[in-house]
This record gives sequence, C-alpha cells and structure tokens, in this order.
Amino acid sequence: MSKYFSEKRKGLVAYVPGEQPQDKGYVKLNTNESPFPPSPFAVRMARQEAAGLNLYSDPECRTLTKVAASYFGVKEEEVIFTNGSDEVLDFAFLAFCDENTPAVFPDVTYGFYPVFAKLHGVPYREIPLTESFRVDPEAYRAAKGTIFIANPNAPTGVALTLKEVEEIVKSNREKVVVIDEAYVDFGGESALPLIKRYDNLLVTRTFSKSRSLAGGRLGMGFACESLIADLKRVKNSVNPYNVNKMTMAAGVGALLDEEYFVDCVRKICENREELAAALKKMSFEVLSSSSNFLFVKSEKMGGEALYRKLKERGILVRYFDKDRLRDYLRISIGTKEDSAALLQAIGAITEEIK
Amino acid sequence: MSKYFSEKRKGLVAYVPGEQPQDKGYVKLNTNESPFPPSPFAVRMARQEAAGLNLYSDPECRTLTKVAASYFGVKEEEVIFTNGSDEVLDFAFLAFCDENTPAVFPDVTYGFYPVFAKLHGVPYREIPLTESFRVDPEAYRAAKGTIFIANPNAPTGVALTLKEVEEIVKSNREKVVVIDEAYVDFGGESALPLIKRYDNLLVTRTFSKSRSLAGGRLGMGFACESLIADLKRVKNSVNPYNVNKMTMAAGVGALLDEEYFVDCVRKICENREELAAALKKMSFEVLSSSSNFLFVKSEKMGGEALYRKLKERGILVRYFDKDRLRDYLRISIGTKEDSAALLQAIGAITEEIK
Repeated sequence: MSKYFSEKRKGLVAYVPGEQPQDKGYVKLNTNESPFPPSPFAVRMARQEAAGLNLYSDPECRTLTKVAASYFGVKEEEVIFTNGSDEVLDFAFLAFCDENTPAVFPDVTYGFYPVFAKLHGVPYREIPLTESFRVDPEAYRAAKGTIFIANPNAPTGVALTLKEVEEIVKSNREKVVVIDEAYVDFGGESALPLIKRYDNLLVTRTFSKSRSLAGGRLGMGFACESLIADLKRVKNSVNPYNVNKMTMAAGVGALLDEEYFVDCVRKICENREELAAALKKMSFEVLSSSSNFLFVKSEKMGGEALYRKLKERGILVRYFDKDRLRDYLRISIGTKEDSAALLQAIGAITEEIK
Repeated sequence: MSKYFSEKRKGLVAYVPGEQPQDKGYVKLNTNESPFPPSPFAVRMARQEAAGLNLYSDPECRTLTKVAASYFGVKEEEVIFTNGSDEVLDFAFLAFCDENTPAVFPDVTYGFYPVFAKLHGVPYREIPLTESFRVDPEAYRAAKGTIFIANPNAPTGVALTLKEVEEIVKSNREKVVVIDEAYVDFGGESALPLIKRYDNLLVTRTFSKSRSLAGGRLGMGFACESLIADLKRVKNSVNPYNVNKMTMAAGVGALLDEEYFVDCVRKICENREELAAALKKMSFEVLSSSSNFLFVKSEKMGGEALYRKLKERGILVRYFDKDRLRDYLRISIGTKEDSAALLQAIGAITEEIK
C-alpha cells in the first residue's frame, strides 16, 4: 500500500477471484463457468461489432434492452445492463446502502458482498445460515438494512423457494431486497415476477453461467422503474458506457438462441445429478444443489488437502479458507469428461492415503 | 428517485454523455471518436476470442500487460487496465481521495471529475483556467488535494508542456497527481517517463480515441508499482474481471499495429489543421488544439443556437451549458468528408441568418 492510499479505505480486503491459469492444462472446475462455448449465434453477433468499435457503445443499451424486456416479460424501464453482475451489485451498494443503511446478508454467501460494503464504508450484518446451510427467511424479518441474498446461494448451491423469497421481500418493505440470481437457471425459482408487485425488490442476473458469456462480462438487474432509475443514475455517475458493443451484441444473440440455452442448461443439470450420485457413492457429503456446482465434503480429508491434491493432478476446484467452509469444496459442473477426470483423480487420491 | 435511494447520494448529478443516436443518419462530431475503424489486426484479434467467452477473462490482463509494458517502456507492475479510462479515474477517486483528501481540478475540464467526487463524497476545489483557457501550473502549487488534470485539456484541446506538468507533480509530492492523457497522442507531450521519478504521478490513457476502440471500452493507468498496487486493490474490490476477453485482445492488436495507429493519428492531425484554418477563415475563434477536436466560437451566434442548427442539418457537435463555455462548441475531428459537410452546413446557416 502506498502512503497515498485513502485512510478511509485502509481496511479494504479485496475479493480473491478463483484462479484463472493461462496455461490450458487444467480441468477447470473452480469458477462456475459453463463448459460449453457461447451460442454460435451469440458469437456471430459479437464478431459483427468488432469492425465498428471506433464508435462508443450505446450507453442506454437500447437493442439489448428491447430484446431482454420481451424475453423476460418486463418493461424496458425495468431493466439495467452492467459490466458483469458484480457491477449491478456495486451500483446497488452505492444506491441503496450508506452509513445509515447497513447491508444484511448470510454469513456464508457470495464473498463479494462484504467487500463492496467495506469499499463503500457501509456497515453490514451477517446472518448465520442454519446448521444445514439454509437461509432461514424468519431470520430476515424486518432486518433493518438492505438485504442481499444469492438464490440459489453460493457456495452451497442451496435455494430458497419463491414463497420464502416473497416472505423476505414482504417483511422488509422499508428497505431494498436484492435477490442475486446468478445461478437460478439451473433449478432455482426466480423472483422476477415479483418485481411487478414489490417496489423494494431488485433481481440480478448474469450471462456468465447459463449463457456461457463469463469472458464477455454481462450482468443485468430487474426492478420497478424507480429502482432501475436509481441504478442508472449511479451508472451514469461511474461509467455510462459500461457495456462494450461486442458484449451487448453477444447478449442479444444469447437471449435469442433459446434452443441452445435450454440444451446447455439441461446437460449441466444432468451432469450435476450424475456427479452428485457418484460422489455420494464415494462417501462424500453432497449438498442438494440448484446451481451449476456442488458443495461437497470428503469423509477422508479436509477441503484444503483435497484441493491441493486435485490441483497437483491438474484439476482446479474452489476451497474457501473460512469458518464453516474449511471441510468443503465447491466443484463446478463441467462436461461428462470433466466429471470422469475428477472422479478418477479422487479415486487415485483416496488410494494414495489408504 | 425512489424512496430507497441513499440520503448520502441524493445530490448526485450524473454525467451526461454526448448523444449516441442509433439511426446512422448523422455526421457524428460530438464525442471525440475516431472516424477510422479499429486496426484490422485488432478486429481479428477480438473476433478470435468470441468463441471462448464461456471462460472468464484474465483478471490480471497478463498478455495485454506484457505487450503494453514493452510498447510503453515500463514494467508490468506499472500498468493497470480498466473498462474504459473512466474506470481508472473512478478507481483513483476511491484510492486517493476521501473526506479529508479533496480533489482539485480546473473549472473547465472533463465533466466527469466533479461527478466522481460527488458520488464518493469527496470534497473538491475547481481552479479557474486563465482567460485564454490555459491551466496555470502556478495555481496548483501545493494544492493540498489529489489533482486531476486532463492534458491536453477537454473541451479546450489546450495542452501543458511536459515541463509544466512536472512542475505540478513536483510541487505536490504529498498528494497524487493524475494526468489524464486521453488525447495526448494527437499532439501533447506525455508525462509517462516521469512515473519513474515521481511516486505521486498517475498517468491515464484510453484506447477510445487514437486507437479507435471507444466501443470496446479499454483504458489504462501508468504509475509506480505501489500506486498501481493501490489501484488494483480497488479494482479487486469492485470488479476483478473488469475487462472482457474480446477487448483485451483488441487492445493487444491495437498496440501491435503501430503503422495503422501512426497513420490514423497523422490523418486526424492533418484534418484538424485544415478544419481549423477553414473555420478561422469563416471568422471563428479557434483555440490551438493538441487533441482530436476543436474548441471554437462563432462570431455570429451562440454555441447553443449553432449546435441546434447543425443538428437540424444532420451534424452533431457538443455544446456545454456551462459558464464560460456557452459561446463555444466542441467539434470532433472526422474525415475530410465530415469536415466538408460541416463547413458547408456552417456556410448555409450563416447565409440563413444574414
């Protein structure tokens, strides 16, 4: 840290993203990416924009907004697009939290929420998950803060029902409730229809997981017009041209190629169930997942040891050095071949320590 | 504004970007874009990445960093890449300004500086330009704040010499000095070599202007290792994957295609001098520009009237509704054809009001 770094932000602990090794030798099951390339139509759409990059992207994302509004059945004024869904979360912290409006979220959830809070000087309160790693809606009744809940949750993969989400939104009408649906396409129930009834609900989504565009950086938020207007005001105070032209076009392509999307999601859910069954057979505890990853615990060794041994064998998974999580690993769902490689490696490691 | 919007940010006035009409009917001279498409090599590089977007972009931008370090003659640890240069400026406000460290910048400059300050609750002080629209280095002596100076300045196009910049950096060793060199390639003297000698200097650049990648969104910052580490800490607390894969590759292509770059810059400077001469002949006051735009004042009508009349004729330029600027227009340098269309329209408008 230089001597010029703001006193106010000296306590900042940056988010640590999963490793992104540039040598291609790894079976990469650590950052919940899709194992499938983007829709070929999305790829074509993105490529078409490359030659016109001398002009700025549309700060209002009009074409993409029209397509998304029609696809998701909302009004154009109810959508915002961002440079990945981390950015819409950042905007929500700026718009709806401050020294007097704390953030409230589970103790085990997406690790970025406390980072945003610290960055913007927002106090926060963590509400423990239940013993079985579930969000307890009762614990959020009149929580007196802006609530952030990933549903399905990460890194557990466990989902709330729509009814449970509605309970939380309903019992916190004085504050904004952000439901981060990064993983919802893999089996969660979306709260999107509720934005028509609750003016305190913001639903965020990403194109990084189910739509295979992690490297394109595209996220979105859905809410009533006035919340979206608030978020756009923040966006226009940070980075009006936040989404580049190629990614906007890829987003249009990804939304229009429904068949490809459905097929990818189906395969990932199928692979997830197969991998979960196989791991259980190998005496793993496997949480029931509604996402594109599994949260698992080996009977035989701690999370860190298994993470290291898998890495030695060319397989990357995610280990969290945090209370309650140290025994577990988060494993992204890849192709059937990825699962086979993982299972083989685990088998070999188990043999080794016998 | 919704009732949920943060009390703290209620005074926020968002930046108003130049119009980005989606119908292609306009001669667009309002947002300082390049009239030339990106380098064909940059386009090819970007396109190649589209099919691999299912994986995240490299949060460390390693390839692009290597290429840039070699191109600009700095160490890899002395560079950061961002989603447009607005983002590196935002990071600088977060890292180097706070309630106790105000921002200091000219009264007439890039309109985003006060917006960032308001967003992050940073007090700021505006130092008036001289009568002739120049930054007076003397006025920044021991300015007791983090200084932001666009050099060449916008919307004036007027540049400080390297010696003048060094004076400012030298007389403010207790604070960071940010030199925003968005337009430097069109005739300014870069302060980049000074980062080796001054640990309080941050130089920012963009690929939006001279490298024809406005729609790709790519900016960068250069400073000593510790300042860059500070900025990366902020980046990793906001959006670690802030630059998408396609844009990273386009950036590599743009840096490697030196011949194309030099040729574009040469043509723009040539067109600028021709347009400046022609406007002077038509009795315009034209500030001497080191950028890819001209700041001009008609003898015959105010800035707003001329802006409107030009827009009616299909030509977009930038008018600023701000004290000291209302008589002026900022006109981006386009192709020779764009200049001809502009001059013809001005001729016709002048006839009209005779």
